[in-house]
Amino acid sequence: MNAHTKLDQLEVGFDVPALPGMDEADIQTPCLVLDLDALERNIRKMGEYAKAHGMRHRVHGKMHKSVDVAKLQEEIGGAVGVCCQKVSEAEVFVRGGIKDVLVSNQVRDPAKIDRLARLPKLGARIIVCVDDIENVAELSAAAEKHDTTLECFVEIDCGAGRCGVTTAADVLAIARAVDAALGLRFAGIQAYQGAMQHLDSYEARKEKLDIAIAMVRDAVDGLKGAGLEPELVSGGGTGSYYFEANSGVYNELQCGSYAFMDADYGRILDKNGRRIDQGEWENAFFILTQVMSHAKADRAICDAGLKAQSVDSGLPFIFGREDVEYIKCSDEHGVIADPQGRLKVGEKLRLVPGHCDPTANVHDWYVGVRNGKVETLWPVSARGKAY
Amino acid sequence: MNAHTKLDQLEVGFDVPALPGMDEADIQTPCLVLDLDALERNIRKMGEYAKAHGMRHRVHGKMHKSVDVAKLQEEIGGAVGVCCQKVSEAEVFVRGGIKDVLVSNQVRDPAKIDRLARLPKLGARIIVCVDDIENVAELSAAAEKHDTTLECFVEIDCGAGRCGVTTAADVLAIARAVDAALGLRFAGIQAYQGAMQHLDSYEARKEKLDIAIAMVRDAVDGLKGAGLEPELVSGGGTGSYYFEANSGVYNELQCGSYAFMDADYGRILDKNGRRIDQGEWENAFFILTQVMSHAKADRAICDAGLKAQSVDSGLPFIFGREDVEYIKCSDEHGVIADPQGRLKVGEKLRLVPGHCDPTANVHDWYVGVRNGKVETLWPVSARGKAY
Repeated sequence: MNAHTKLDQLEVGFDVPALPGMDEADIQTPCLVLDLDALERNIRKMGEYAKAHGMRHRVHGKMHKSVDVAKLQEEIGGAVGVCCQKVSEAEVFVRGGIKDVLVSNQVRDPAKIDRLARLPKLGARIIVCVDDIENVAELSAAAEKHDTTLECFVEIDCGAGRCGVTTAADVLAIARAVDAALGLRFAGIQAYQGAMQHLDSYEARKEKLDIAIAMVRDAVDGLKGAGLEPELVSGGGTGSYYFEANSGVYNELQCGSYAFMDADYGRILDKNGRRIDQGEWENAFFILTQVMSHAKADRAICDAGLKAQSVDSGLPFIFGREDVEYIKCSDEHGVIADPQGRLKVGEKLRLVPGHCDPTANVHDWYVGVRNGKVETLWPVSARGKAY
Repeated sequence: MNAHTKLDQLEVGFDVPALPGMDEADIQTPCLVLDLDALERNIRKMGEYAKAHGMRHRVHGKMHKSVDVAKLQEEIGGAVGVCCQKVSEAEVFVRGGIKDVLVSNQVRDPAKIDRLARLPKLGARIIVCVDDIENVAELSAAAEKHDTTLECFVEIDCGAGRCGVTTAADVLAIARAVDAALGLRFAGIQAYQGAMQHLDSYEARKEKLDIAIAMVRDAVDGLKGAGLEPELVSGGGTGSYYFEANSGVYNELQCGSYAFMDADYGRILDKNGRRIDQGEWENAFFILTQVMSHAKADRAICDAGLKAQSVDSGLPFIFGREDVEYIKCSDEHGVIADPQGRLKVGEKLRLVPGHCDPTANVHDWYVGVRNGKVETLWPVSARGKAY
């Protein structure tokens, strides 16, 4: 470790988990680590898939909340832009230089609508979802006020059970209202089946997606019949993208987690019955943690608890280790079963968290590593941007 | 709303959920709201209890991670200082002016030990927990290097099953090593029974604490016999403080959640069988959320999901409403059952999160409200300080 890379010489209160050039062994824990080789392979692979299937790929920025990762996805993965879920996230991506940004969500608060309508002035195409005809007038007024154009996707609830309308008639009615409104442009359909992405069985996922595709096709047919053919039909995730890509009706994907992988996605099965983290995608995203107590012979305590991850989708697993198991998570501690007493105080482990999105959201930095060295630090640019 | 309190006039990317002076109705969601009247009543009540029982109260700063809340606890609640779980948190509290800070956890990484040993130079008393005799030499060397004194609590695992030793002999051995080490001072015992705090039944909690108290008394007797009487015997939480206060062996409490309350603590029962959020403590801590879609008649979608809270201890409840229920949480959405169709798009609701500590840790700001107005914004000063 060089003199200029000694973290303990930094000013009190200046917290970064690592500095570029540092050995991986000197990274401060707990923190997020990206395996840059694995990340790049995942990004290239999905980019090639989308290209081969004639699909646009609008990567989901709500997963990583990072301008740097989004730019990498554009540069080596052919991404056309990002989607995200909040206006404050969209602001971060637009300011960071992303030129095509979809807020794949409804925006109803007057102050947020106003902020959204200002964003096209920064040189980006801005699209937002609509599921209520009353929202059309609100968006139109704000776009008119700022002399901008907001593009709109009508959102179909094709199984997620959250936002979105459920009939072709409702889609058409909202699309017509958008088409007629000043300052707005009808740009297409949002149809993401979120509820099926984590079903283990490929066949169970296909069954749900078949229903979704039928709903979307019905809506598209209705729009075409009314002279409102959608430019974009957008959706798809890491557990479904091959269904949308082969549907003949979608033309844009919105995958997020494929780039990082996590424990909950990793355990779903591909069409050959193999876990998708055992061939389709690589684990590129880890919580680095350190053993800080081993006062009992058969259990070690590590420094990554609920403040370092979200456990909504289950506990993390310990990457590359069969002999030890993360069995309990409290605020600042993880309890690791170590029946053979293998772990030592100070030892570092890579955890694969249950759910990548809300885990990334509790950290300030990604530490990018390659060949045992810290290559880069990327801020979690939109961390906490929940407005 | 005055001109200077219009959030939509702020620069793009400048995110605060509110500004002082603003009406509560204009706060941007999702965000954390503190009911300042309720917060102050909780803080005063615990302060009076501790004083009446001759106990020091070292409030747990890892719960709120806020210098402002800690100072309020000192000013109106008689708190003697804080405890926290990480060196980076301790740095925030010391820089914020807290003069007595316990890291109620082990510190084993060399860079972290070095940073910890520098903190007394900033004018604070610094105490740290030890559960391994090898750690004594590490701490001593760092204190010697920086010409400071680190005080040490020997940690007893009295039931939490995490860090800490389990026999009076081990306590004494470590205390002797601390006492003999240059740069260190043996200051007492850490004995927090974390695992029992959330047991519903008062009697079940008492049973666990009786065991803990017996262990602690045994250790204290051993120390006294060796001429190492502990100055401080510290522990206790919101579900147990009356047991420690009446034990005759503890002299310092470490309560945290009493000040804010949450859904998981709220449902435990006092000795009269009443929920502790129905009299003992008030809900002072909320996630403010807004309905942003109601495309289905019987369910509303709000804007507070996993990025706005931790659901490790269950879903939030909707404060003051019996007619609607938060039933599902995804990354950015909450699904609310609204069987009678009472909610309107744009309507705001107060959620009481399952677990206050990791929920606070995903937000940047506390919005303090009183009488329908925003009175203050406090940063979540140590948010993300996990190192």
